[in-house]
Amino acid sequence: MASEQIGSSGSKPGENMLWGGRFTGGLDPLMVSYNESIYYDRAFHTQDIAGSIAWARANHKGGILSAAEFSAIESGLKKVEKEWAAGTFKIIPGVDEDIHTANERRLGEIIGKEIGGKLHTGRSRNEQVATDMRMWLRDELRKIDTYLSDFLKVIAARAEKEVDYVMPGYTHLQRAQPIRWSHWMLSYGMAFASDLERLREVISRVNLSPLGCGALAGNPFGIDRQMMAEELGFEGLLWNSMAAVSSRDFVVEALQWGATLMGHMSRWAEDLIIYSTQEFAYVKLADAYSTGSSLMPQKKNPDSLELLRGKSGRAFGQMAGFMMTVKGLASTYNKDLQESVEPMLDGIKTYADSIQIATGVLSTLATNPAKMEAALDPFMLATDLADYLVRKGVPFRDTHHISGQCVAFSEKSGTPMNQMKISDFKGIDARFEKDVLACFNYEKSVEMRSAAGGTSKKCVLEQISVLKKMLA
Amino acid sequence: MASEQIGSSGSKPGENMLWGGRFTGGLDPLMVSYNESIYYDRAFHTQDIAGSIAWARANHKGGILSAAEFSAIESGLKKVEKEWAAGTFKIIPGVDEDIHTANERRLGEIIGKEIGGKLHTGRSRNEQVATDMRMWLRDELRKIDTYLSDFLKVIAARAEKEVDYVMPGYTHLQRAQPIRWSHWMLSYGMAFASDLERLREVISRVNLSPLGCGALAGNPFGIDRQMMAEELGFEGLLWNSMAAVSSRDFVVEALQWGATLMGHMSRWAEDLIIYSTQEFAYVKLADAYSTGSSLMPQKKNPDSLELLRGKSGRAFGQMAGFMMTVKGLASTYNKDLQESVEPMLDGIKTYADSIQIATGVLSTLATNPAKMEAALDPFMLATDLADYLVRKGVPFRDTHHISGQCVAFSEKSGTPMNQMKISDFKGIDARFEKDVLACFNYEKSVEMRSAAGGTSKKCVLEQISVLKKMLA
Amino acid sequence: MASEQIGSSGSKPGENMLWGGRFTGGLDPLMVSYNESIYYDRAFHTQDIAGSIAWARANHKGGILSAAEFSAIESGLKKVEKEWAAGTFKIIPGVDEDIHTANERRLGEIIGKEIGGKLHTGRSRNEQVATDMRMWLRDELRKIDTYLSDFLKVIAARAEKEVDYVMPGYTHLQRAQPIRWSHWMLSYGMAFASDLERLREVISRVNLSPLGCGALAGNPFGIDRQMMAEELGFEGLLWNSMAAVSSRDFVVEALQWGATLMGHMSRWAEDLIIYSTQEFAYVKLADAYSTGSSLMPQKKNPDSLELLRGKSGRAFGQMAGFMMTVKGLASTYNKDLQESVEPMLDGIKTYADSIQIATGVLSTLATNPAKMEAALDPFMLATDLADYLVRKGVPFRDTHHISGQCVAFSEKSGTPMNQMKISDFKGIDARFEKDVLACFNYEKSVEMRSAAGGTSKKCVLEQISVLKKMLA
Amino acid sequence: MASEQIGSSGSKPGENMLWGGRFTGGLDPLMVSYNESIYYDRAFHTQDIAGSIAWARANHKGGILSAAEFSAIESGLKKVEKEWAAGTFKIIPGVDEDIHTANERRLGEIIGKEIGGKLHTGRSRNEQVATDMRMWLRDELRKIDTYLSDFLKVIAARAEKEVDYVMPGYTHLQRAQPIRWSHWMLSYGMAFASDLERLREVISRVNLSPLGCGALAGNPFGIDRQMMAEELGFEGLLWNSMAAVSSRDFVVEALQWGATLMGHMSRWAEDLIIYSTQEFAYVKLADAYSTGSSLMPQKKNPDSLELLRGKSGRAFGQMAGFMMTVKGLASTYNKDLQESVEPMLDGIKTYADSIQIATGVLSTLATNPAKMEAALDPFMLATDLADYLVRKGVPFRDTHHISGQCVAFSEKSGTPMNQMKISDFKGIDARFEKDVLACFNYEKSVEMRSAAGGTSKKCVLEQISVLKKMLA
Repeated sequence: MASEQIGSSGSKPGENMLWGGRFTGGLDPLMVSYNESIYYDRAFHTQDIAGSIAWARANHKGGILSAAEFSAIESGLKKVEKEWAAGTFKIIPGVDEDIHTANERRLGEIIGKEIGGKLHTGRSRNEQVATDMRMWLRDELRKIDTYLSDFLKVIAARAEKEVDYVMPGYTHLQRAQPIRWSHWMLSYGMAFASDLERLREVISRVNLSPLGCGALAGNPFGIDRQMMAEELGFEGLLWNSMAAVSSRDFVVEALQWGATLMGHMSRWAEDLIIYSTQEFAYVKLADAYSTGSSLMPQKKNPDSLELLRGKSGRAFGQMAGFMMTVKGLASTYNKDLQESVEPMLDGIKTYADSIQIATGVLSTLATNPAKMEAALDPFMLATDLADYLVRKGVPFRDTHHISGQCVAFSEKSGTPMNQMKISDFKGIDARFEKDVLACFNYEKSVEMRSAAGGTSKKCVLEQISVLKKMLA
Repeated sequence: MASEQIGSSGSKPGENMLWGGRFTGGLDPLMVSYNESIYYDRAFHTQDIAGSIAWARANHKGGILSAAEFSAIESGLKKVEKEWAAGTFKIIPGVDEDIHTANERRLGEIIGKEIGGKLHTGRSRNEQVATDMRMWLRDELRKIDTYLSDFLKVIAARAEKEVDYVMPGYTHLQRAQPIRWSHWMLSYGMAFASDLERLREVISRVNLSPLGCGALAGNPFGIDRQMMAEELGFEGLLWNSMAAVSSRDFVVEALQWGATLMGHMSRWAEDLIIYSTQEFAYVKLADAYSTGSSLMPQKKNPDSLELLRGKSGRAFGQMAGFMMTVKGLASTYNKDLQESVEPMLDGIKTYADSIQIATGVLSTLATNPAKMEAALDPFMLATDLADYLVRKGVPFRDTHHISGQCVAFSEKSGTPMNQMKISDFKGIDARFEKDVLACFNYEKSVEMRSAAGGTSKKCVLEQISVLKKMLA
Repeated sequence: MASEQIGSSGSKPGENMLWGGRFTGGLDPLMVSYNESIYYDRAFHTQDIAGSIAWARANHKGGILSAAEFSAIESGLKKVEKEWAAGTFKIIPGVDEDIHTANERRLGEIIGKEIGGKLHTGRSRNEQVATDMRMWLRDELRKIDTYLSDFLKVIAARAEKEVDYVMPGYTHLQRAQPIRWSHWMLSYGMAFASDLERLREVISRVNLSPLGCGALAGNPFGIDRQMMAEELGFEGLLWNSMAAVSSRDFVVEALQWGATLMGHMSRWAEDLIIYSTQEFAYVKLADAYSTGSSLMPQKKNPDSLELLRGKSGRAFGQMAGFMMTVKGLASTYNKDLQESVEPMLDGIKTYADSIQIATGVLSTLATNPAKMEAALDPFMLATDLADYLVRKGVPFRDTHHISGQCVAFSEKSGTPMNQMKISDFKGIDARFEKDVLACFNYEKSVEMRSAAGGTSKKCVLEQISVLKKMLA
Repeated sequence: MASEQIGSSGSKPGENMLWGGRFTGGLDPLMVSYNESIYYDRAFHTQDIAGSIAWARANHKGGILSAAEFSAIESGLKKVEKEWAAGTFKIIPGVDEDIHTANERRLGEIIGKEIGGKLHTGRSRNEQVATDMRMWLRDELRKIDTYLSDFLKVIAARAEKEVDYVMPGYTHLQRAQPIRWSHWMLSYGMAFASDLERLREVISRVNLSPLGCGALAGNPFGIDRQMMAEELGFEGLLWNSMAAVSSRDFVVEALQWGATLMGHMSRWAEDLIIYSTQEFAYVKLADAYSTGSSLMPQKKNPDSLELLRGKSGRAFGQMAGFMMTVKGLASTYNKDLQESVEPMLDGIKTYADSIQIATGVLSTLATNPAKMEAALDPFMLATDLADYLVRKGVPFRDTHHISGQCVAFSEKSGTPMNQMKISDFKGIDARFEKDVLACFNYEKSVEMRSAAGGTSKKCVLEQISVLKKMLA
């Protein structure tokens, strides 16, 4: 009964395709498009060609290709690259399923199949796509390093310039204590600086070469992997051929990095959206980063910030989706891995664009220090009031309670706390003295917080210098 | 100090853009592309135009537009739609930021701005985009209903035809008990049938009209929302204007639905990938759904199934990403919501394509019942052996233990359990009698499981009829 | 070389456990705890016992158990349940790995193993755990239906009572148009009503019986599944035994539902957190739902709302995690599925608690209509101003532009728009007449939006009645 | 109308709690439990007490506490820690809302409130919880470093010992090329080694001190942050007080790391689950890591591996959930951040347990090299056959095609490829010579792949040495 298979000869659909279906003649056009990647992996054309040249050079060194063959391949590939650069490369639909196939097909047309057919000796698309992706990603992440550094420079410059603006600091979105506006900017500066530090670690793990690892088992022609890696700018080799071709950890890590970066963006944007409401009004976006309403003539909406915030979801989704794709996948290469490409492409574009938009927003943002100042209220100094008594030797737990009573007195009497009389204070606790009124000074309050990391000017300038050191 | 704002007049970047930046002249070209949606929301051109015609008709009824004005708008819009259909609509980069703007711009060119400028009376893009998206999504989900029904029909037909093939059923990927191949197919059939049931509930919630809800507060010209809803095929109205324009629950629910569907696909594909290994070899994919290797000449890989499985991650990512985008978003419309469009478009394409691919795969799959049969082994009847003693009055917990001893005897002695002698059985437990050997019959085993939902032929056919009822 | 296996006899670690490790004697205590579920699945004790009684009754009917045996089992199980209810059930660590094992072990102690050992006849823990989970989940979701209905009643009651408060409506968190406070409440009411509708659909899919489906292949003793399903309150049967034991779609769907619910909570909480800032000050939380600061005496923080918002992440995580767990899982039961229990338990607790907290918050929330009113500004009527001209026959696109010029005039001149003179208006467009000043009336503005779903009182009351119909 | 607030005095529910609700007397018991964290954050008791002692010491140095006061606080706190260690600390329900409050409450009971009340001077729970969490996480991640290193040692040792076993290597789960079993083990070894490398980077970012940063604005008593950081083993300071108290990036990064680790586990487990099927049968789990079936006596299921695989979803969910929680959160501390604790606790337990289980599984796994060998088939050498012709100067694209024809010949004729006659080969391509038969040698095939990263013994041993270097 061994040969009793349903379907014509076990593989071809056709006359005995018993259960209906869309296609005839053994081909499903939808499957062709479901399978092909050329319309997005052509993004790697430069890397693919550089990789092939390195491959050919190493195979020449290894005796697989003659000098003439290598030379033909190299110049042929350079011509192909020129076609890509000039936008004249013609993808043949249904034939050029991916960038590797397309480039090799074109090479064969240019230099002939006899020599062109030798290029792929001992090579697999598995190693090729991993090589292309790692090189492309490395190059893009380095650009992002630059964008992020530029953003941090704007933060640092602006923090230095506007260090004197004092505004309410919030916890739970309730006014908490006075801070410097620059301190707020630098709080995100530190998050983005941490992103930059981590980015460089990610790049190091991305920039390792899988070339020479074959389909899964390695190269049988003794190819010089180190030589190829150097030519292609890799920092080192991947040491196990199976892992080299089937790991997409470098994508996962880059996407995790990006999702964290965009998470920071979402918080930064949220703050600025709130600060640009009519109710807060601390900042105002440049027109270039705002839009109007099709219905309401008065509107000026912080669309740039909302997109930044919204795209944190997109970045997260690309990461989450691909992490699910690789979950529980058996060794080694499986076609599922093709699903790594689009999230990577979209992720990188999202991060790169978003950082630049954020830089533009911050560079052109108008601040309104008068509004910031007007929003400070004496209750925000209740901790300073408690600290005042601490300095007179009262245990903090008591001073916290006493200060709370002052707040209550102010609320009930309708007297702002900084306008309460000495007698009012003394009525609450006898240890209050005349000098208590000196507490009600926002500038003094921020200057008092002079331990490292605090709001005093010295501390804020120290943060700027920490930041600048990272950028040097 | 109130006017002391940084940045030129609070909004224009320019000479006093102190912190550098990419742009000049108050415009950031990157922001234009970061903000625009036309290159993907043009997918809604038909819906956008139908919505505008319904809008104009209702405004005509309401006295906002004269008969002549309405007529001009209607015929103008139909011309615009023809341009889209013919592929001749020319998007003006940097001007046509979205499909609504593009269509209105073109309408104005065709019928003049005097009349064209009346179309948008009392309308907001907020309600417009929600209307377009809901109509588009409804239409697409209905197509998916058809695809899914077709897939279920193939499952039912194939299950009916191949009901006699018996194969190992697995738990923990270990051989457990014999089942019918059709029972396996129907186990997924039930999951996909449940998807179909739920899909129809989703469509009902998608297909509600936000048109006439304005930017957030409703329509001030007493527009007849019911009339527009009927013209556009909506099943009902959304009852709160703020919710109507800012809710993207219909997208979230569709994406959740799709992620569940694709989760089912991932399990179905996983099974078939395992069943098509050389080690299992129960099935063989048609060539149309397989691919070869660039390096290894003997390979035939189940790429279609791997893509199906991999795209479960993609579908999940689109859902997860957009759920994060809407998390914690303040009322009502925020630009973040623009990030709903691409996940929806990509999600729908993924589901529609995947169901059709799965249908193609199953329609053309070759089965190898001989291999299935060969993989059945007597240990899979150990439960039947225990049940045998249950029928002789031995408590199940004991029979389970005794059967386990038979398994151990078989393993140690190297005698397949169905070749053990009666004396071997009696040596383990005296209650075994001659008729024990009748247990070792796979066909009998599957027929024994005749309670509803079981593997007996009657039960399997009952499932097919349950399925067909859903599709009628 | 066939028997050359590493490890002692292929399965027992021990003297030849060559690579070190933690355990000796063939047991890894960590594995015991890694594997056991009793410390959380005991939550199902009531359902597990009810299921076992139904099982025994059906097996009595089927002749597997005598009347006396059934009676002993039933009364024994009721005793076990009493021990759980009284908190006296003693779990034996390392023995009672799950609730099913624990209950059966205890039953055997109470009624003897001879009869107790017959309970499990033809049954598998695979079907048992699925049955327990579905019953438990159904019961809990029904409680949640009640909580959610109560919440909606509070929304409706409050919306009715406070229908006269007018406040700024926001888009992009920028003041847009006046709305009723009740309209805001009802915008979330509609979202939660949709959750309620969908909840009921989810319950219907949860409440289907897997009992009688065995380990994967069904029941060989002709058990009456329908009878058991009725006893246990199920609405129907699952029709394929493999799907019945291995599907956790009912968990996935409930978790998706909950993640959407909590997503709504996150937006509702976000709005209220913003509205309770000092800058907005529209609402004030009751002390019961706020907390103070350990450092800052003046603070009153909306912790309840922040937890509601934060837990949207938790609910999402439980959903996302379990969706990943089932991704790509081979048929049928795999131990991975054990990971469904904790997300379900935690999810349900999160939803149930959160809805009740939200109800408490809203029930006790203080509103400040004076602040709402004070925040209305004339620019929010710019659309009404445009509409004024529309009514005079000016195309909307022009009126939008003209109204924008009025806004600009007001901004530049520092004259609030509602204090501009007729001549100012006429200076901008000659078609303005005296009656333009009547536009500047917030109450009138909300009343003008009287198309269904709008802000007029009639429309708001209509929404309340739509809501109440759902709750009846 | 300013004081017209609904609700009694704007904050207390009570007689005029108009919309019903569960609670009376201004207290909602559910809110108490919804809010409290003590039942999980007590995990930090050691860190919390160490932090408080460092705090007191620094405040003594700063003159806030006298020597006697510091001494009393230090010895009091040590007593509290002893109570935790002994399990005698009594949490007071409803009072001890978190570990910080509980410890301070108990300290006050032991040393009196007069001195105890001074401990919290200038300190906020915001900085305290961040400090506790970072210390705890650092300590746990260091333990995980040890577990992971141990796992890698087992991999290396086993790979060295079993280097001679040759098995099929798979791509697309189809037999591809022969590999060494050790090469398979090391392919995961490389992934876990990369996890170890990254873990150390994560620890460095976790191990930075927020202590001395106050609620958000810093410390006003000039506390010596460096001194505290050193006492507590931190590697450095966080430089911005706002970021220090509100960033939970250290949790996010640890959870991302863990999700990646568990992703690797899921793939490793998947492979071993497949390899332990009856169909593959390359490996057999020790009994300690397997379980039986309640219904089927013959079953031995790889539960340990399935749990490992399933928990990859759990780890992902904890990460995904918390990433959503922090999305779009406004500065600085918000109660949402409390939701960071449970994912962190659960995540760490999951990773630590899972690595140890995996180590146990691998340490005790039985391998069956005979089965591995039996599964090798000549088609897996089709690439070697193509390479043979390459060495004779035939272009690879041709050799690939020719080798494919040999495969087809073998399939059609039913002759295993290694039993085809020279004439058969020559019939396909004249360039085949006698020595072609030497291709059909699996051992030779793996040895041929001797470029770095390949399957040759030298390359495999090189990988082991790379791994060992990391562990030194």
